[in-house]
Amino acid sequence: MKEFTHINKSGNPHIVDIGKKKETLRVAIAKGTVKMKPETLEQIKLKTFKKGDVLSVAQLSGIMATKLTSQIIPLCHPISIEHVDVNIEINDKENSLEITSECKVSGKTGVEMEALTSVTTTALTIYDMCKSIDKTIYINNIHLHHKSGGKSGIYNAKK
Amino acid sequence: MKEFTHINKSGNPHIVDIGKKKETLRVAIAKGTVKMKPETLEQIKLKTFKKGDVLSVAQLSGIMATKLTSQIIPLCHPISIEHVDVNIEINDKENSLEITSECKVSGKTGVEMEALTSVTTTALTIYDMCKSIDKTIYINNIHLHHKSGGKSGIYNAKK
Amino acid sequence: MKEFTHINKSGNPHIVDIGKKKETLRVAIAKGTVKMKPETLEQIKLKTFKKGDVLSVAQLSGIMATKLTSQIIPLCHPISIEHVDVNIEINDKENSLEITSECKVSGKTGVEMEALTSVTTTALTIYDMCKSIDKTIYINNIHLHHKSGGKSGIYNAKK
Amino acid sequence: MKEFTHINKSGNPHIVDIGKKKETLRVAIAKGTVKMKPETLEQIKLKTFKKGDVLSVAQLSGIMATKLTSQIIPLCHPISIEHVDVNIEINDKENSLEITSECKVSGKTGVEMEALTSVTTTALTIYDMCKSIDKTIYINNIHLHHKSGGKSGIYNAKK
Amino acid sequence: MKEFTHINKSGNPHIVDIGKKKETLRVAIAKGTVKMKPETLEQIKLKTFKKGDVLSVAQLSGIMATKLTSQIIPLCHPISIEHVDVNIEINDKENSLEITSECKVSGKTGVEMEALTSVTTTALTIYDMCKSIDKTIYINNIHLHHKSGGKSGIYNAKK
Amino acid sequence: MKEFTHINKSGNPHIVDIGKKKETLRVAIAKGTVKMKPETLEQIKLKTFKKGDVLSVAQLSGIMATKLTSQIIPLCHPISIEHVDVNIEINDKENSLEITSECKVSGKTGVEMEALTSVTTTALTIYDMCKSIDKTIYINNIHLHHKSGGKSGIYNAKK
Repeated sequence: MKEFTHINKSGNPHIVDIGKKKETLRVAIAKGTVKMKPETLEQIKLKTFKKGDVLSVAQLSGIMATKLTSQIIPLCHPISIEHVDVNIEINDKENSLEITSECKVSGKTGVEMEALTSVTTTALTIYDMCKSIDKTIYINNIHLHHKSGGKSGIYNAKK
Repeated sequence: MKEFTHINKSGNPHIVDIGKKKETLRVAIAKGTVKMKPETLEQIKLKTFKKGDVLSVAQLSGIMATKLTSQIIPLCHPISIEHVDVNIEINDKENSLEITSECKVSGKTGVEMEALTSVTTTALTIYDMCKSIDKTIYINNIHLHHKSGGKSGIYNAKK
Repeated sequence: MKEFTHINKSGNPHIVDIGKKKETLRVAIAKGTVKMKPETLEQIKLKTFKKGDVLSVAQLSGIMATKLTSQIIPLCHPISIEHVDVNIEINDKENSLEITSECKVSGKTGVEMEALTSVTTTALTIYDMCKSIDKTIYINNIHLHHKSGGKSGIYNAKK
Repeated sequence: MKEFTHINKSGNPHIVDIGKKKETLRVAIAKGTVKMKPETLEQIKLKTFKKGDVLSVAQLSGIMATKLTSQIIPLCHPISIEHVDVNIEINDKENSLEITSECKVSGKTGVEMEALTSVTTTALTIYDMCKSIDKTIYINNIHLHHKSGGKSGIYNAKK
Repeated sequence: MKEFTHINKSGNPHIVDIGKKKETLRVAIAKGTVKMKPETLEQIKLKTFKKGDVLSVAQLSGIMATKLTSQIIPLCHPISIEHVDVNIEINDKENSLEITSECKVSGKTGVEMEALTSVTTTALTIYDMCKSIDKTIYINNIHLHHKSGGKSGIYNAKK
Repeated sequence: MKEFTHINKSGNPHIVDIGKKKETLRVAIAKGTVKMKPETLEQIKLKTFKKGDVLSVAQLSGIMATKLTSQIIPLCHPISIEHVDVNIEINDKENSLEITSECKVSGKTGVEMEALTSVTTTALTIYDMCKSIDKTIYINNIHLHHKSGGKSGIYNAKK
């Protein structure tokens, strides 16, 4: 049985010792979905041709959130993130927005939490900006899509 | 057609003027789900009888996140939150954890975003603490469950 | 001779006691200018028809900075700001961008510092986003344009 | 025509990938001016012989601001800054204070934004501390004075 | 037996509900001591006649820390603090510095934690600035000296 | 006579230049004591068999505080901390809690301030959680217990 690495020998949480881990290029991609009423999506699309639209504010919030990750997640190591890219795609069939965040660092620990925090923040900002017209929005499917670098090797989520 | 209130007359985002809104007691409850492998949930349950368990760290992170909300969500008003309660229930049937966050404030604007940010942070912390043993965790169903106070009255999510 | 209010009787800085001041609606408008090469301005204008342009990122950074003001300025009171509006106008004659930030609060202290911090942050973000193509950018004329509410009454900058 | 590096191929802002850049010593010096009434400057000078004077609070705020830079500027990389020095000189002829900030890091990206944010924060704090006696203060000439290290080589502002 | 108010009915920590508490003027004074080698204190005293001395940096850090209190202390309510005054006295007999911090707010909850966090931060900054010449510094006697306002009435520490 | 390294040649504070220091493994252990009424300690002990107890919240706050250290202490370098472990022991004889925090980093500067900030934050959180039942709590003996790595070699506090 694998052990929770965040718990020390006395059974207390700690920030895991990464001092002896190797510095390698680490990449993580996370994904998530924001589901809404068809008319909400329609209105978002209308606004994307103007400045200040929902998608560009949400996308920027997702980028900035990666820099707050270690303050939000208690046992997360602070890192000097080297690349962040957030993308939002419109899914007309599902009346949803599909968010992808890719993060990179050359370091001793991965960027999974940065990518995931980026996706949830992007989703929350979409919610915030649409809540005056739609309170029935759901955020779903937040998950790790891809991870590489580090001891545990490459991980790809199953479809 | 309702308008996005976060966009000003020039089409730019702004922090909405709440100066003339009434100060009332405002409550929001948000919910969300963290789905995992049965053996991950089993291991979380084993640890809940010790200090430093996954659930108590995650619960506390969800409380603290409410105080970072206006820094995470770009157009969110800073508020002096008056009550936060985060609860995590184990759902053995679904191999999931069900998160509920309730926030209150006496103010001119609601606490929806605080409650939702609280739930997503709790979920992300559960992910962070379990990721060494399970990378297939999904965060789902983040949504507003209840809201009261303010001009728009009471809202309850449909089942 | 007027006294520096931020210095206490022992000659040390303090956060001024505003406990007995009246809660009134307070407004502040600050302005500033970012001067650049004509070709830099040209390129900014080309990009404004696309998502992710310089102006929308800068504008949003100026909004968000108002919420960090009391952490940036040592003796500034933390406040629950109620309205922020940041506007950037293109001045083709002067090869510059003219920034205006308007802030409001119902409180015991004004929002001058929030408006000024908002303008400088907007300007710094414009610099950051253009620095790969132009290092000769100057930020000028950061000043208080208008202030109302509170004991000292209405202030308007002279032309 | 040079390209904005902060915009990705889809036209969205991103945090530029610096993963493959070389770690070198990077230095940046920024400057700026705070212009005020002669009597305001006179009063600042009187207070510099006491503890808690305007200049020492402003100078410290400029140092501390370098550590908030990546939270203030949306696309700025978080870095582990290695040296910060802020200097304020009194210019009696111009009734102004001349601010200089020098920052250093051994890293993959420069410290321009840290130096510039440091100068504007120092200036804003001077404003904050003098605003009870002078509302006509102007912040001017914020610019990059010197930069070295990194691919683009040495830059010195023209006089 | 009195109950821990920070624990809810399910035995979990929560941010206590202060929604129904009365808004009154609340004051708290905290104190603490930094004990050091005689020669360290001597050197601090020599520097107090120059800018940038240990005491003025420490004093300012103690003021600013009050604004970070709710981010540092997990269950602490965020508040809009209205007055902060930090004082450091030299105790030559005991080779120590005696720190006092006074905080005020008109609100539903007290400012004990702000005053105490202010004192410990002032002490830590003194440590930081002296650690190159003295590693044997001790921080002692951090305690609440006085508290007034709110349901529990006036409290004064016994000598 | 040793010099304060945090003061530059002009007598102003600066963030010391560590650019040329060697990157080595640096460890620091700090300690401190929270003294309280016997009945307060008794009640803490009763709660440690339940979730949400005083000690686990305090312990986590001490871990998280290490990540805020460079924002709290003005001249402290921001670092990417690699390991944090906080331990709280019950001392029944002295009616006190004994806090130890151990921090590690591979870097150019030490982690003394992180360890000390961690101990004081743990102590302050214990205070916060017990203040509804005991206002006479004292925080004492905050000091550096051990330090290794870096130019100044190994330091151990005398008993």
